Amino acid sequence: MDEVVALCKRRGLIFPASEIYGGIANTYDYGHYGVLLKRNVTDAWWKAMIQERDDIVALDSAIIQHPKTWEASGHLAGFSDPLVQCLGKCKKRYRLDHLQEEAVEKGEDPALVKCPTCGGDLSEPRAFNLMFQTNIGPVQDEGSTVYLRPETAQGIFLDFKQTLNYARKKPPFGIAQIGKSFRNEITPGNFIFRTLEFEQMEMEFFVPPDEAEQWYEYWCQERLSWYVKLGINPERLRLRPHDAEELSHYSSGTSDVEYLYPIGWSELEGIANRGNFDLTQHAEHSREKLEWKDPQTGKGYLPHVIEPAAGLGRTMLALLCEAYDQDDIGGETRTVLRLHPTVAPIKVAVLPLLRKDGHPEKAREIYTALRKRLSAEYDEGGHIGKRYRRQDEIGTPYGITVDHQTFEDDTVTLRDRDSLTQERVPVEGLVDLLEAKINAA
Amino acid sequence: MDEVVALCKRRGLIFPASEIYGGIANTYDYGHYGVLLKRNVTDAWWKAMIQERDDIVALDSAIIQHPKTWEASGHLAGFSDPLVQCLGKCKKRYRLDHLQEEAVEKGEDPALVKCPTCGGDLSEPRAFNLMFQTNIGPVQDEGSTVYLRPETAQGIFLDFKQTLNYARKKPPFGIAQIGKSFRNEITPGNFIFRTLEFEQMEMEFFVPPDEAEQWYEYWCQERLSWYVKLGINPERLRLRPHDAEELSHYSSGTSDVEYLYPIGWSELEGIANRGNFDLTQHAEHSREKLEWKDPQTGKGYLPHVIEPAAGLGRTMLALLCEAYDQDDIGGETRTVLRLHPTVAPIKVAVLPLLRKDGHPEKAREIYTALRKRLSAEYDEGGHIGKRYRRQDEIGTPYGITVDHQTFEDDTVTLRDRDSLTQERVPVEGLVDLLEAKINAA
Repeated sequence: MDEVVALCKRRGLIFPASEIYGGIANTYDYGHYGVLLKRNVTDAWWKAMIQERDDIVALDSAIIQHPKTWEASGHLAGFSDPLVQCLGKCKKRYRLDHLQEEAVEKGEDPALVKCPTCGGDLSEPRAFNLMFQTNIGPVQDEGSTVYLRPETAQGIFLDFKQTLNYARKKPPFGIAQIGKSFRNEITPGNFIFRTLEFEQMEMEFFVPPDEAEQWYEYWCQERLSWYVKLGINPERLRLRPHDAEELSHYSSGTSDVEYLYPIGWSELEGIANRGNFDLTQHAEHSREKLEWKDPQTGKGYLPHVIEPAAGLGRTMLALLCEAYDQDDIGGETRTVLRLHPTVAPIKVAVLPLLRKDGHPEKAREIYTALRKRLSAEYDEGGHIGKRYRRQDEIGTPYGITVDHQTFEDDTVTLRDRDSLTQERVPVEGLVDLLEAKINAA
Repeated sequence: MDEVVALCKRRGLIFPASEIYGGIANTYDYGHYGVLLKRNVTDAWWKAMIQERDDIVALDSAIIQHPKTWEASGHLAGFSDPLVQCLGKCKKRYRLDHLQEEAVEKGEDPALVKCPTCGGDLSEPRAFNLMFQTNIGPVQDEGSTVYLRPETAQGIFLDFKQTLNYARKKPPFGIAQIGKSFRNEITPGNFIFRTLEFEQMEMEFFVPPDEAEQWYEYWCQERLSWYVKLGINPERLRLRPHDAEELSHYSSGTSDVEYLYPIGWSELEGIANRGNFDLTQHAEHSREKLEWKDPQTGKGYLPHVIEPAAGLGRTMLALLCEAYDQDDIGGETRTVLRLHPTVAPIKVAVLPLLRKDGHPEKAREIYTALRKRLSAEYDEGGHIGKRYRRQDEIGTPYGITVDHQTFEDDTVTLRDRDSLTQERVPVEGLVDLLEAKINAA
C-alpha cells in the first residue's frame, strides 16, 4: 500500500489536500492523472448502468436537501458511531466498535479495551452523528440547520415521484446518480479508502415486491462482473452476504462486493435489498403518495428497492492496487501500473525518437490528431527508455515512437506496456487501430 | 423564462430539490435529460480546455480544505454581503446592495430604501459571510470550524507547487477543475442562475508577469468563442470589462462574458487578471515558497494568473434559453429545444413506425447498436408525430424511423429536428453518419 501511495503522490495521481497548510484529516486531492482515472471509472459505470440500458435513468440531486429527508431516512436518529474518549493522558477520541474489533482479532476481551495510545481508561461511549451540519441563511438556529448528505441514495427516493412523472418508466426500473457525499469520520482512512468527502455511484432499482429477490441476485452478479471487466482479478474479488447481525433492520438481504486490498478483504460496494423501507418513510413524513399505480390491474403498490452502491475512491484504490507491479527489464527494476486500457488515464504516448531530424514535428502532428479522440500525451524530454518508464508508471498502455523509418514508409513503432512488444504500424488509421485495441482489451 | 422553467420540469431536465418536503431555497435537482446536458457541457469544456491542449492539466481538489485557505484568500474577512432586516411587520432579510440597485433603476434615492414587502424601516446593514460553515470531528469549537469552498479556484492555488513537482510544466501553463462550490445566498436565484450549490468550471493560467496582459486578451477571446461553438448566438453574447469601481483590488483587469438572458444581460463567466495576489497570499500564510524557478535564468518569480471562471448552471440556462423555440407544423404549435447536437441530451431517437410487422424488433436492434457509441433513445409509445414532438421538446437533433421499406432495402428515414427534412439512409454505417453529422454541426 505504501508503494501505491508513494507512486500516486510522485506521479500526481492523488495527494493529501491542503498540504501547504499541514493537510486536513482523511482528505485528498486528485491531480491530472488521478482525475483522468476518475473520469474513466465514472464513465465506465455510466455506460454500463445508464447509456447501454433503457431501464435506468440518471439523476443529479443536491447535496443539501430539506432536513426532513434525514429524519425520514433515519440518519438523524441513527447514523452515528459510538465514540469514546481517553480519560488518561492523551484525551484522544476513538470509535469504540473499531477498538473492540481489534481486540477480538488479537484474541483479547473486547469489554476491557483501553486507550491504544497511552493505555488510559476510556469514557462511556456516546453517539456521534456522522452527518456534517451547517445552516442556511444568516441565522444559526434549529430552523436553519441542514446537513451535507451522507449518501446520494436519499436524493433518489425524494425524486421518485418526479421521475415517474417525466420518465415514462414502470417497475422494474432504476434511477442512478454519481455524486459527492460527506461523513464526519474520525477513524484513520487508509488513504482514499475512507475519506471525509467521497464520491458514490449509486442506483436504486424499483421492482414489483415479488420480484425483489430475483433482482437482488441479478444485481449481485451484474456488479461483481463489472469489476472483472475493469481489470480486477476475480480471485481478489468476493461477494460476502451480511449475516443476521450485520443486516439493517429493513433489509432482507445485503451483500458486499469485497476486494482483497493490502489492508485485507474490504468493502468495495454494497448491494442491498431495502424492501420498501425508504419509500414508506418518505411517504409518511411528506404525506405524498409514493406508490406506483399499475395501469393494468389498477392497483397501487410501493415498489421494493435493490440498491447497488459503489464507492469511487474504493474502486480507484482497488484498481491501483491491482495494477501496481514491478518487473525487471534488462537488469533494471520497472514500476508499472497495469491498468486496463479503458481506465488508463493516458491511452497513448507519442514520442519522437530524437529531438531533431523532424522527429518532434512529425510526432506532434500525430499527437495532435490522436488527442481529438483519445487522451494522449506528447513527450520529447530525455532518453526514450526513461520516457517509456514514466508512461509505465502512470499506466499508459500504448507508446508510439517516430523514428527515421517513419519518414521512409509513414509507419511508427507501437509499444505495448505489458508485453513490451514493438510492432510497426502505419500512421494512417492509427486512431482507429488504437480504439479497436482498447475496446478489445 | 417561465416557459423554459416549465419545460424543464415537465420533461425532467431540472426541477426544485426536496419538493416532496416543500423544497429548499435556490436548490435544484437535475433529472435524466438535465444530467445528460450537464455532462455534455462539462465534456465540451474538458475537451477544449484539457484534452486538446498540452498546456493545461486537470485537478480535482476537495470541497473542505484547511480553514487557513480562506484566511489567506481573503474570503473569511471579505466575502460577505451587506444584510438588512425589516424592522417593521415582516422581519424579512434583504441584501442592501440589491435593494439599492433596484432603487437606482427606478430613479429613486438609494439612501431611502424601505422594506419591499411591508414598507417597514430597515436595520443597519451587517456583513454576512457567504461561506457555509461546519465542523470536523465531534467537538464544535473554533478549532474544528471549516468551510465549504465558495469557489474551486483556491484549491488550484493550494496545489500549485504539487503540480509543478509532477507535471513538468513551465509558465505559461494552466490548472483546470470542474467541481461544486457553495454560497449561502439569500437572494432569489432566478431558477438555476444563482443557487446555493453550483458547479464551476475554472482554470488558473500561470504566466510570466510580462505576458499577463497578452494572455488575458487571449483568454477573453478564447472563452467567448467557446460559447459560440456550443450554439449561442454571438448577438446575445458580449464581453463587458469591469470598470474601476467593480474591479477587485488585486485585479488589473476583469471582463465578464455576458449573455442576454430573459432577465437581461447577466454574467456567464468572469475572466480575471489576478496578478500574483493569490500565490503571494498563500506563500505568506503557509510559509512555503510558491515561486517558479526559471532553469535558464536561475531566477525565481511568482507567476501572474489569468482566471477564466465559468458557471455550469449559468451555461446550461443560457443554452436552454437560446434553444427554446416554438414554431408551427401543419397548423399545430411545436415546442422545440434547438440545442447544438454536441450538447443535446439524446443524439438520436429510434422509432418503429408501427407497433407490429417486426418494426419494434428491427428498431430495437438499431437502437442497441447505436447506444454503444451515442446517447440514444427507443420509443414505441403513441402516434409517430407525438413521439417526434416529445423528442423535439428535449432537443434530440435526429430521429430514425423504421418502416415497411426498411425490410426491403435496409434503409431508414432520418429526420432532422430543425429543417424537418427526412432522408432515407442505409442502416449500415448509421452510427458513423450520425457522428459525422454531430461533429460537423
